[in-house]
Amino acid sequence: MSAVLLSGKQLAQTIREKAHQAARDLEADGLRPTLAVVVATDDGSTHWYVRSIERAAGSAGIGCRIVDLGPDATEQVLASVLQDLSGDPSVSGIILQTPLPPGVGTDELVGHIAPEKDVDGANPLSLGRLAVGRPSFAPATARAVIEILDHFDIPLAGRNVVVIGRSAVVGKPLSLLLLERDAAVTVCHSRSGPLEKYTRTADVVVVAAGRTGLLNGGHVSSGAVVIDVGTNVLPDGSLVGDVDEGSVRGIAAALTPVPGGVGSVTTSLLLLHTVAAAREQARTLVPGSAG
Amino acid sequence: MSAVLLSGKQLAQTIREKAHQAARDLEADGLRPTLAVVVATDDGSTHWYVRSIERAAGSAGIGCRIVDLGPDATEQVLASVLQDLSGDPSVSGIILQTPLPPGVGTDELVGHIAPEKDVDGANPLSLGRLAVGRPSFAPATARAVIEILDHFDIPLAGRNVVVIGRSAVVGKPLSLLLLERDAAVTVCHSRSGPLEKYTRTADVVVVAAGRTGLLNGGHVSSGAVVIDVGTNVLPDGSLVGDVDEGSVRGIAAALTPVPGGVGSVTTSLLLLHTVAAAREQARTLVPGSAG
Repeated sequence: MSAVLLSGKQLAQTIREKAHQAARDLEADGLRPTLAVVVATDDGSTHWYVRSIERAAGSAGIGCRIVDLGPDATEQVLASVLQDLSGDPSVSGIILQTPLPPGVGTDELVGHIAPEKDVDGANPLSLGRLAVGRPSFAPATARAVIEILDHFDIPLAGRNVVVIGRSAVVGKPLSLLLLERDAAVTVCHSRSGPLEKYTRTADVVVVAAGRTGLLNGGHVSSGAVVIDVGTNVLPDGSLVGDVDEGSVRGIAAALTPVPGGVGSVTTSLLLLHTVAAAREQARTLVPGSAG
Repeated sequence: MSAVLLSGKQLAQTIREKAHQAARDLEADGLRPTLAVVVATDDGSTHWYVRSIERAAGSAGIGCRIVDLGPDATEQVLASVLQDLSGDPSVSGIILQTPLPPGVGTDELVGHIAPEKDVDGANPLSLGRLAVGRPSFAPATARAVIEILDHFDIPLAGRNVVVIGRSAVVGKPLSLLLLERDAAVTVCHSRSGPLEKYTRTADVVVVAAGRTGLLNGGHVSSGAVVIDVGTNVLPDGSLVGDVDEGSVRGIAAALTPVPGGVGSVTTSLLLLHTVAAAREQARTLVPGSAG
């Protein structure tokens, strides 16, 4: 028996088309949704990724403004740019791309992204709102996991779901989204002890730890659905997840591939969030417009 | 074998003395920490609770301003009062007491409590900051659980901790605090399926569901530490927790009583948060004062 591969490509395409249609609808009202991406690094793979967002936006009829501040940008400059973009009515969504220059902390800066434009859920206020069930954008990667599970009709209510990783961009927001979907949610991490204690009885295992080969076949039960959020670049330049695909495919029922799994859905969701943000901003700015 | 009862009374007293000493230190600088409690109900037990906070504050040298807006207060009035208190330099901490008048929602209102005065961690921004490890006040009840566990030297790192209840005031913030302490954290709730699936293997079980008798001896293993956050008022007026004390005491290693457990520590922590808020506000307002 070999696990079914849960490709994210078709879903990514469907979401992108949905975003494109919503962008066309807004265009008919004279609005062009625009995503601003703030970059402050000369890291090649970051620039490659940002260009891939730009291309995806373009093909979905969404504007993309790359604000490249260079690898020497100060925290003050970054904060001021994020404030300006937050107040700029021509910008619908804002992403602050990591890595940042040495010594510049993400935590303080993301507080300058207006929550209604925070399409990648980076501002702590967005996370807090998510926790209390108020409108906010979840980090696109966390939401991508839920969308993939839904796409393949994998039930969550009453299920035992284990999340490996406790980051503010994936593990924590994802656990909130899973709770909202009535799962029992366990969060494990590098210091929580043997993984198999939790993963062997799990219906769904989500790995978001950033460690190549962290989860292997011995960790999971047959019947388990494994979602691999890891994106690790090997010395030869190839991309692998956190799952030891060879051994897990022999045991688990289903597995998302890397690349072509969660990551492919993430960018599409950023676009969908951007058009949703543009629509909401138009609604709140124009009195009497459709609700 | 009968479980050890983990009383919160001594710890509550210790924390209250710590708050009192800090209040004295601030008084020496001409400052009086003050807690504002906003009430909008004629519910008798709420008023009883608010008076108990007032008494506790008084005996710790902390001012308490009860702002009673009556059971007919509108959302607009409540919002405006919270904004005024947030801007009032003579107020160090703010609590919005529930229940609120029918039709008035807590979720929107708590956003008007300035995060630096949000001593019961009610503003979603406080929860979001907690999630990303930035300075913020945790809800006092959630923190009380951690303080009791620490007080009785119950280790958390690498332990299997199960939290029953996913509320924004206890379950969710507590799970964040437990993750910060390196536990593996599982959150269960009314729709997550059979509790014993998770609780039987847990080292620590925290029950915060608000349902009398929810956790019984059949749910826990010998050796388990059980923390009861429930406060349910029986028809005869007596207070009980969520734990069926009789059966759990026969199995578990330790259990917090209700009353006299978590609840007694919570009020003391509100006072400690209030003096901490006052100190921080003095530090940021007076240039050149001690850091």
